[in-house]
Amino acid sequence: MFDAHKQDAGKASFETFERIESEVRSYARSFPAVFTSAKGSRIFDQSGRSYVDFLSGCSTLNYGHNHPKMKQALVDYLMQDGVAHTMDMYSVAKAQFLEAFDKHILRPRGMDYRLQFPGPTGANAVEAAIKLARKVTGRTNVIAFTNGFHGCTLGALSLTGNGHHRGGAGVELTGVTRMPYDKYFGDGVDTAEQIEKMLEDASGGVDAPAAIILETIQGEGGLNAASAKWLQKIEKIARDNGALLIVDDIQAGCGRSGSFFSFEEMGIKPDIVTMAKSLSGMGLPMALVLLKPELDEWKPGEHNGTFRGNCHAFITARVAIEEFWANDDFEDELKLKAKKIRTRLESFVKTFPDHINRVKGRGVMLGIEVANPEMTSEIVKASFERGLIIETAGPDDEVVKLLTPLNIADEDLEAGLNILGDALQAVYTDASLQAAE
Amino acid sequence: MFDAHKQDAGKASFETFERIESEVRSYARSFPAVFTSAKGSRIFDQSGRSYVDFLSGCSTLNYGHNHPKMKQALVDYLMQDGVAHTMDMYSVAKAQFLEAFDKHILRPRGMDYRLQFPGPTGANAVEAAIKLARKVTGRTNVIAFTNGFHGCTLGALSLTGNGHHRGGAGVELTGVTRMPYDKYFGDGVDTAEQIEKMLEDASGGVDAPAAIILETIQGEGGLNAASAKWLQKIEKIARDNGALLIVDDIQAGCGRSGSFFSFEEMGIKPDIVTMAKSLSGMGLPMALVLLKPELDEWKPGEHNGTFRGNCHAFITARVAIEEFWANDDFEDELKLKAKKIRTRLESFVKTFPDHINRVKGRGVMLGIEVANPEMTSEIVKASFERGLIIETAGPDDEVVKLLTPLNIADEDLEAGLNILGDALQAVYTDASLQAAE
Amino acid sequence: MFDAHKQDAGKASFETFERIESEVRSYARSFPAVFTSAKGSRIFDQSGRSYVDFLSGCSTLNYGHNHPKMKQALVDYLMQDGVAHTMDMYSVAKAQFLEAFDKHILRPRGMDYRLQFPGPTGANAVEAAIKLARKVTGRTNVIAFTNGFHGCTLGALSLTGNGHHRGGAGVELTGVTRMPYDKYFGDGVDTAEQIEKMLEDASGGVDAPAAIILETIQGEGGLNAASAKWLQKIEKIARDNGALLIVDDIQAGCGRSGSFFSFEEMGIKPDIVTMAKSLSGMGLPMALVLLKPELDEWKPGEHNGTFRGNCHAFITARVAIEEFWANDDFEDELKLKAKKIRTRLESFVKTFPDHINRVKGRGVMLGIEVANPEMTSEIVKASFERGLIIETAGPDDEVVKLLTPLNIADEDLEAGLNILGDALQAVYTDASLQAAE
Amino acid sequence: MFDAHKQDAGKASFETFERIESEVRSYARSFPAVFTSAKGSRIFDQSGRSYVDFLSGCSTLNYGHNHPKMKQALVDYLMQDGVAHTMDMYSVAKAQFLEAFDKHILRPRGMDYRLQFPGPTGANAVEAAIKLARKVTGRTNVIAFTNGFHGCTLGALSLTGNGHHRGGAGVELTGVTRMPYDKYFGDGVDTAEQIEKMLEDASGGVDAPAAIILETIQGEGGLNAASAKWLQKIEKIARDNGALLIVDDIQAGCGRSGSFFSFEEMGIKPDIVTMAKSLSGMGLPMALVLLKPELDEWKPGEHNGTFRGNCHAFITARVAIEEFWANDDFEDELKLKAKKIRTRLESFVKTFPDHINRVKGRGVMLGIEVANPEMTSEIVKASFERGLIIETAGPDDEVVKLLTPLNIADEDLEAGLNILGDALQAVYTDASLQAAE
Repeated sequence: MFDAHKQDAGKASFETFERIESEVRSYARSFPAVFTSAKGSRIFDQSGRSYVDFLSGCSTLNYGHNHPKMKQALVDYLMQDGVAHTMDMYSVAKAQFLEAFDKHILRPRGMDYRLQFPGPTGANAVEAAIKLARKVTGRTNVIAFTNGFHGCTLGALSLTGNGHHRGGAGVELTGVTRMPYDKYFGDGVDTAEQIEKMLEDASGGVDAPAAIILETIQGEGGLNAASAKWLQKIEKIARDNGALLIVDDIQAGCGRSGSFFSFEEMGIKPDIVTMAKSLSGMGLPMALVLLKPELDEWKPGEHNGTFRGNCHAFITARVAIEEFWANDDFEDELKLKAKKIRTRLESFVKTFPDHINRVKGRGVMLGIEVANPEMTSEIVKASFERGLIIETAGPDDEVVKLLTPLNIADEDLEAGLNILGDALQAVYTDASLQAAE
Repeated sequence: MFDAHKQDAGKASFETFERIESEVRSYARSFPAVFTSAKGSRIFDQSGRSYVDFLSGCSTLNYGHNHPKMKQALVDYLMQDGVAHTMDMYSVAKAQFLEAFDKHILRPRGMDYRLQFPGPTGANAVEAAIKLARKVTGRTNVIAFTNGFHGCTLGALSLTGNGHHRGGAGVELTGVTRMPYDKYFGDGVDTAEQIEKMLEDASGGVDAPAAIILETIQGEGGLNAASAKWLQKIEKIARDNGALLIVDDIQAGCGRSGSFFSFEEMGIKPDIVTMAKSLSGMGLPMALVLLKPELDEWKPGEHNGTFRGNCHAFITARVAIEEFWANDDFEDELKLKAKKIRTRLESFVKTFPDHINRVKGRGVMLGIEVANPEMTSEIVKASFERGLIIETAGPDDEVVKLLTPLNIADEDLEAGLNILGDALQAVYTDASLQAAE
Repeated sequence: MFDAHKQDAGKASFETFERIESEVRSYARSFPAVFTSAKGSRIFDQSGRSYVDFLSGCSTLNYGHNHPKMKQALVDYLMQDGVAHTMDMYSVAKAQFLEAFDKHILRPRGMDYRLQFPGPTGANAVEAAIKLARKVTGRTNVIAFTNGFHGCTLGALSLTGNGHHRGGAGVELTGVTRMPYDKYFGDGVDTAEQIEKMLEDASGGVDAPAAIILETIQGEGGLNAASAKWLQKIEKIARDNGALLIVDDIQAGCGRSGSFFSFEEMGIKPDIVTMAKSLSGMGLPMALVLLKPELDEWKPGEHNGTFRGNCHAFITARVAIEEFWANDDFEDELKLKAKKIRTRLESFVKTFPDHINRVKGRGVMLGIEVANPEMTSEIVKASFERGLIIETAGPDDEVVKLLTPLNIADEDLEAGLNILGDALQAVYTDASLQAAE
Repeated sequence: MFDAHKQDAGKASFETFERIESEVRSYARSFPAVFTSAKGSRIFDQSGRSYVDFLSGCSTLNYGHNHPKMKQALVDYLMQDGVAHTMDMYSVAKAQFLEAFDKHILRPRGMDYRLQFPGPTGANAVEAAIKLARKVTGRTNVIAFTNGFHGCTLGALSLTGNGHHRGGAGVELTGVTRMPYDKYFGDGVDTAEQIEKMLEDASGGVDAPAAIILETIQGEGGLNAASAKWLQKIEKIARDNGALLIVDDIQAGCGRSGSFFSFEEMGIKPDIVTMAKSLSGMGLPMALVLLKPELDEWKPGEHNGTFRGNCHAFITARVAIEEFWANDDFEDELKLKAKKIRTRLESFVKTFPDHINRVKGRGVMLGIEVANPEMTSEIVKASFERGLIIETAGPDDEVVKLLTPLNIADEDLEAGLNILGDALQAVYTDASLQAAE
């Protein structure tokens, strides 16, 4: 029987993974440890060492690891033989989630969406969203953006800008037109205006789009945060051209931006929203497509999947909503948290003006862009050695990205930021010394 | 807090689902009840009524609902704050699963595969498999079969024969050549020979394939079971033409065919195997791609996904392997179970010779093909009313498919078969009476 | 000024072509001579040597080279400054062609088609045909056949079975399903029945077709002649499935099959017919799409092209129709010609039973299939050395194909067949001797 | 027998075309007359009326209609039974063309290209060019531009920006990325820089291109003339990214730009050049692909076509080269001609400042952009009524385009420009009067 606290340190060796698991594994290479347990902002390896977690499963653990109330609800459910797997049959667990989502998320925000449970991954939610958009509009073309990331299944991959991932397709990725994101060509160029011109030109060569899909803050793409003005213009372009607006809120949603949805404060009303990652609250696979009721042209079972009724996730997701989103307290707390992190990151920019360009991001989705992208792996390594798990983002991995649990305790936040500061100091002093030699 | 046994019968109403959930829901329409808990072969609705489960989550619950040992292991893991979500970082839970799979599944069968954890759905495993095949061979075309079903994300959907699902794509599904499955044109036509001719003809118009992907028993396609001879010929065709052989064992694997892999007794050695559904043992999302070591050309992170490190599933999956596959007992039991079911189904054919054509399938994946497909929804309905959950398959839903838990207790099996017999009696007597009028 | 008869034999050297022209040239490699003039069934090289022409520009010169009446009409037109190039404006030359085609071709056959002039190549006619079929039906998929050849532009190429040509595409060829042609799997297998089954199976995985396109006799594919019964069944399948039937009559049309259209005697009524090659009568570029009036949904200019109003070709095409198709004499003559050629080819089969399998083809589109495809290039070479131009066909170039001018004089036909007989004798005696050594 | 000068005026009626020809005809609708003969810059209808031809077959008749030397050479060739159709066999006619092109076009310009004869249409040349680029680079993506026009066969159409034409495809047009042409977003935006950024960004989402294809002056797109600086930057981007640069010189080549190739004075050296239209000199179908010798990876016959050896066109094409391009006289004359036209067009701008925005184009490829696109069809109509054939261009048909024969006699040029002036006067005075009412 598993006993996290009594693991023989030598039991699980790297050799097991290297021998049996595919070379495709990647985070394991940055964080060479075998992890056992985790609680809140801390994760433990089998030697008992603890790490502050500024990765949070790429924004999947916004409420930290093993939140006690979610954990307890799941244990209770298990002990009562709550049904775990239901395809898309009705279950009490799903009903309770639906009602909680409706009551605490949609209604207070004046939103009217139907909920579709696709397969329990973000990529699957994106696949369902573009399928629906194409089906409803009878068009094929979907406009996606530079540096956008939407997943690795074929439909999602066709929307993804990243060449490393696209290269894995082995087949032509069709049906998508890539356009420049906000400020992609610098502050002086209004890319929305350019998109508008190409779409309205009868010989612009861009087929009438079924949808425009975007992240309001590009997570994998390097923490590019679109302005409200640009988003509103894109929404207008979509409406004017008969296209649906899809917001992929998989990474930036569930509070990461400072509000539940990343688009709430941006003045736009997407037709479809995709969600996943932190939805279940404790890292269990779950995904969701929100669609305006009038778009619900799905035939029964037209987009299906075995695990779309993951009741364990419904249980913890409901607890997450009730615990964090039943009133405004958590959102208020997020603003303070965001400010604290940003202030500290700006101090890093000041300390290393030659090495760190600027703070990027929005809400509690922040990071620093460094001058020399080759240094970020050094920073990640130096941080890990000091007990911090943190990752990079951007086309050249030029951004060190902080995705702390949103409810991280002040002392853990402080500890993590201190480690990051130390790591920067070590890397850049070292670099400066080498350069000086 | 959730209390499965104390649900107020009126609490979760159909109205909740009809108001908030998308029209895409489908099983819920066949089985109009709100389920709460489940144990072994039985599932309970909120009114306390119990149903024998011959659906088993479409072969996701091969060991029944909430198997006590799996459940206990998961509760223990939770109570110790075992890490739930790890992306693809190393965890003790994963190490233990890897070693168990290697020790009890691969090594006793003399198999040498690397394990890749894609996103935790079958579709994602299929997506990864064809990506890899295209990448490794530098070719695009994948040969798939009539009545094949491989999932609903775009890459998997392109392989899927079902027109209802394909119609949802809204975009051209490319890169796939559809070929006739074994006995598709009747017993007298060797479709493998036809495929061979088309591939070897310089003007056959079928581009050199990256892979041939097949299910050895087509689950959704209507329980078509390929012969060993045909499978061996297809394997040879793949080898002769430089293509990889991919077996999609998502529905037929994990014991459903009578052995762990559905292809074990067929005399073939696939290059890639996709698994999901019953892998985790109790319905938790988990998927796996097995690939021959020499094919492991993935670059780190080239195919990734947030939930590919679902540790809860690793825990229960390990228990499933240790409990059922550490020795031959379970396989022996499966043979008896299969025989018992087949015998009873054949008795139905004899009883209703005008209405039921024949028994279809292999192993514990069996069903009856009826003469008039329009009757199967009646049979499903009549079964449900009598306390049995069972579904249909085949292009015209002409097959009533039995996917009982593999470890179903004899009394539940008997009860379920009796209900099915009663339902057939009711439907066909009724039909005969109407016809006689 | 050009003087065909006074060419300095040394003037045009192979070196010119080898230095300046692309490696893509191909017939030039089989027939190493520089040609100057041609008349009837004879073509002359710059050394004054004459060759019997059994190639006829791949059925482009059905009435022989420089037919005196066509030539004279064109010279007259030129001398009067008849407009040569008109885009798609109205010209007297086009009006006269239209009326002649209507009067002598369509009306006597009880056919009702609109004429579209695409760009003046067969490929362009095929491109227009499938565009129209897709546009009219709103579907994408087109069914084409093994060993079909329809051209080298991207749309036409996607329909073409030949791997050598497809390999040049450099891009995935989509939107086409390849099916087995009549007798592709031998006499015992009804491939039309197989196609029907796949189309009618809801999980057959073949998307509803916009069109079925076929040649009634596959020229490049090796002189495979479909039976009337098969063609009628394919027509019925098209109708039953809401697809258009397109006959590509580019090579087999204009009398080659024994009647003007190759499908006349087959009992089918295609919705669209593509024509080119011998349409202009003396080798000038011209192509035509015939479409049923109710399909004429083209918007003005929707499919255009610079050279679709090639008036020189209209002039000679009109003469060809008036000269050969104003009454039945020519068709009667074709039957005799066909019989004569077939008889002689059958004598070859008898003479070389170990080397020549059988006579293939229909009408005046005949050839011999040899046992060892590697010998056909020897036969072509030995023929050329003896003064005969003849080519091969079939996926492995296993067929020696005779495309004589349809109006070839008896003495030229005799001469050509004698040369072919001598060449066979030389090649197979030689081969037998070598084998005997 | 045809007698252009003795046509019975009533003989060819519109009814013939309306009854028999497809609705796809388009120029015929703008120029409602039945044409018989043509000479130089004049074209005659069957009533004997003559029109000044400012359309020139969309730049296909750069040397006017029925140039006496070309006509005579063709008549001589015909009278000597010169071979008309040779597939890609060697002919004296082709040899003489090759040597003339090499001697008078390539060598004086220090250019080293191999010549490929694709099917005799511009679209076919474009198809061959992109096939070759994809084949040589092993990549799929081709970058094309807003407002580019490259033809209507599927491969060429995928490169074409025009939505009207693209809409006819009925199938997804893949493998192409559309980018903004020079000054597409106005003078202040350097679109080449934007393209460079998207290509160099690892997450820009634009797959590595096989080629960049462009017209240096966009004919159908509205006479947009790219600057030398932009073209040079695009060439550099192509080189830096391993892509081939293809110049489509079908409309702007053969002297239209003021030099033989439109790119000669732009400081770029394309890897591949496509030509057609005026190549044959008198409107006969002929096309050409020029490719750098090191790119000549074609296998024999890999891209073929029945009419790629149109000897009539070779004869007239050789005469055209010898007559116009053997020395610099013609190019000098073009500069004067261009100046004369531009001056007159600028006077129109001054005369109608509210109605005509500006003169567009380069060389002898000029036009006027009007303020209200709806007026251009009026201008075309008013011109035709007064004896001038002229067409429109641009996404909204907002440009009146002048494509006079390059060797147009001064009096015809004057006459045509006067008619255009009168037509403008009539249309805009009329419009002003109406507006004033």
